[in-house]
Amino acid sequence: MTDAEDQLIAEAERRLGAKAVITDPKEIEPWVTDWRGRVHGAAPAMLAPASTEEVAEIVRLAAEHRVPLVPQGGNTGMAAGATPPADGSALLLSMRRMNRIRSISAENRLAVAEAGVILATLHEAAHELGMRFPLTLGSRGSCTIGGLTSTNAGGTQVLKFGTMRSLVAGIEAVLPDGSIHNGLSGLKKDNRGYSLDQLLIGAEGTLGVITAVVLRLVPAIAARAVAWAGVESPQRALDLLRFLEARTGSIEGFELVAEDSLQLLLRHVPDTRAPLSGEHKWHVLVEATTADPHHDISAELERLLAAALEQGIIADAVLAASEAQAEAFWKLRDTISEAERAEGQTLAHDISVAVADMPRFITEASAEVERKFPGVVATGFGHLGDGNIHFHVRAGSHAAPGWYETEGEAITRFVDDLVTAAGGSISAEHGIGQLKRAELARLASPGRIHALRAIKHALDPSGIMNPGKLVP
Amino acid sequence: MTDAEDQLIAEAERRLGAKAVITDPKEIEPWVTDWRGRVHGAAPAMLAPASTEEVAEIVRLAAEHRVPLVPQGGNTGMAAGATPPADGSALLLSMRRMNRIRSISAENRLAVAEAGVILATLHEAAHELGMRFPLTLGSRGSCTIGGLTSTNAGGTQVLKFGTMRSLVAGIEAVLPDGSIHNGLSGLKKDNRGYSLDQLLIGAEGTLGVITAVVLRLVPAIAARAVAWAGVESPQRALDLLRFLEARTGSIEGFELVAEDSLQLLLRHVPDTRAPLSGEHKWHVLVEATTADPHHDISAELERLLAAALEQGIIADAVLAASEAQAEAFWKLRDTISEAERAEGQTLAHDISVAVADMPRFITEASAEVERKFPGVVATGFGHLGDGNIHFHVRAGSHAAPGWYETEGEAITRFVDDLVTAAGGSISAEHGIGQLKRAELARLASPGRIHALRAIKHALDPSGIMNPGKLVP
Repeated sequence: MTDAEDQLIAEAERRLGAKAVITDPKEIEPWVTDWRGRVHGAAPAMLAPASTEEVAEIVRLAAEHRVPLVPQGGNTGMAAGATPPADGSALLLSMRRMNRIRSISAENRLAVAEAGVILATLHEAAHELGMRFPLTLGSRGSCTIGGLTSTNAGGTQVLKFGTMRSLVAGIEAVLPDGSIHNGLSGLKKDNRGYSLDQLLIGAEGTLGVITAVVLRLVPAIAARAVAWAGVESPQRALDLLRFLEARTGSIEGFELVAEDSLQLLLRHVPDTRAPLSGEHKWHVLVEATTADPHHDISAELERLLAAALEQGIIADAVLAASEAQAEAFWKLRDTISEAERAEGQTLAHDISVAVADMPRFITEASAEVERKFPGVVATGFGHLGDGNIHFHVRAGSHAAPGWYETEGEAITRFVDDLVTAAGGSISAEHGIGQLKRAELARLASPGRIHALRAIKHALDPSGIMNPGKLVP
Repeated sequence: MTDAEDQLIAEAERRLGAKAVITDPKEIEPWVTDWRGRVHGAAPAMLAPASTEEVAEIVRLAAEHRVPLVPQGGNTGMAAGATPPADGSALLLSMRRMNRIRSISAENRLAVAEAGVILATLHEAAHELGMRFPLTLGSRGSCTIGGLTSTNAGGTQVLKFGTMRSLVAGIEAVLPDGSIHNGLSGLKKDNRGYSLDQLLIGAEGTLGVITAVVLRLVPAIAARAVAWAGVESPQRALDLLRFLEARTGSIEGFELVAEDSLQLLLRHVPDTRAPLSGEHKWHVLVEATTADPHHDISAELERLLAAALEQGIIADAVLAASEAQAEAFWKLRDTISEAERAEGQTLAHDISVAVADMPRFITEASAEVERKFPGVVATGFGHLGDGNIHFHVRAGSHAAPGWYETEGEAITRFVDDLVTAAGGSISAEHGIGQLKRAELARLASPGRIHALRAIKHALDPSGIMNPGKLVP
């Protein structure tokens, strides 16, 4: 612990009380490693403010003592953006005590949630009012509103409702100078200069600490229909999406799965079976929803899929006959990563290109990777309708200790080069954090790197907000 | 003309040719005064690049010679944000020669338009493909895509489709250091650090020059239904909106009009008549649209309004029986400002508060202004569903030369104080430009002013991009 940290901790304890300052290493330990267990950090203390004023007080102390802070929500990030540096030179700033839903209204279709509110808690609060917060993802039982906003999280419902950026109507945050930015009025129109709200979304805590967020709600789902379809190619899958979207506004989930991924999970994941009897090179999981209780969504989806079959867009399809079967279909999509891990070492790439370019990208990039690195198996699955797939490369016959650090890194650079050449993004929804910072530095244009650094330095000249993250 | 300007003009002529450099005062003259004729500027030259590379060349020259540039589209702004300073110390940068629609696709629902493309031109191009760019406003025949994006323009369809911020899928811009930011891939998901696109939207050309924009398209309208309803109060109008929105996704326009405004325009605007026979304190114009040719939108709106009448939410309503009548209803809404001008001096305030607070705000703020400044007439009309109304104050019995500059300014400060106290915005959709800069400086929090200045200085350290605008 540095002297400055020591002084800050003592001062914070004096001003905010013992509850807000945790120094017991056992209590801190679960929070200094990222949840995938890949990056190990250290912190001499974890500060846990209970109000926006307490956050402001901590940030002012940090600025005064020049001690960096690492804001953290549920610690469920995919890029180690909330993991402190290993040398203990920063303190953790846990937002989990700020867990109040300050207000929620079905009439206004808005909720104001503090940064530490867990996503599932917000889901439940909205549900009780007959409403819904439509963003969801695997870690919903742990991830927080502050973390979701700071990383502009995505998930499986982006097709219809967008990422967090589309669902945030205002932000309260403490800026690096300790001032409080209050954007909680929930204004639908506000043109008073640069949008600090938009700048803080996706900034991963490097420009300030988000303390509360105004979120848009939509009417609760009255019914859903889930189907599984077999298609010849990713292009056919996209054709199906266009076909459906031209005829209904109800499509909410549209996930692409390769036959190879399906076979893998049928082998490794218990209680799974293929929805269709024949063999198909590619599969699509479609979910349609309606908020209107009089709308027969199953009949609509069945009719549309029959028409798509008739037109030769799909080769076969089956509608889930029950909620249990719908869940079983989703389980197939959600356990691909688990099956890959069981199979051996796998590299994950969360990438995006323009939606129209994705079918060709999947096909060509997989072939190029497999040609360049013989023995590996490359495939893509996920959010085709968002132009965002998880492009995974399995070690295959190359599996050997140290593969990640040797060939693995070369493969990742190769994939990132292909994505960049296609005008795409090397981080579609997971962010940059620590893990993708070197690749961002390597691949972003000099003008963009200059702009990111200039903005960071302008708002956080002492570098106290989440150092070593995001900005290359 | 300064020596530096002289050198820049000569160098630009040499590199880009005579077509790109206009120095004839007669050709420049129409563009140095804002369209409302309130602010008069001067510029020794108007630069008119035809490509992104030419814009970059001009910005690099401007940086080198330290000559500020004032980007301009259709010169239709409401806050004189595109009007050069009066001392001739800056050059106009006209984007109107960059007027190509680079691509447009119904399948991808995207268009890439250069900054100088006129909104009406984009409307037509989309229409030819059976699609629609849903943002529209009065100046659609002159305003440009670059200007609309730089001011985050709103208009009458924001209720359903949002402001420009919601409709922009990517931006190409020249940053103040002359580098080109290329965000035209149209990625739906991209988390590679701070969003420069979002920072440039609404920045009014102070952080760079937008050269092209990717825009979202929606399916063309198959049919619309327009109705006029009489209500007891702004709160009843909002009740009607909630009632409709809970039952249909088709409501696209929802405009509030006071009886006082209606009487004024019936008096001053030829060929107008009241849609309802009885007297009502407040009126609402409702527009519902559908992209589905099988959907009987008139029947739906009629049924919903009948139910609202039954429940006592509205006092009366009439559905336009023809397109001509629908146009006549819209004419009533669109000629209020014209009628006010005919009546005498009027102060316009483009303000917003939270949607739920707007009914009370209209009622209370009007009363407070009329009490504080006896003789004036205050009223609000416009986009109730966006929490954005045009709060206008007529001189009434106070009409005397110089009223704008004396009592007028005091009234504006009083209104802005009321808006700020209500957590609202003193510029909902018109921006800050030159005209609202002093009020922004007076009313924004010190933390916010510091942040705006820091961002501006970080990206434009020499202050060459649209000086004297937006940043307080």
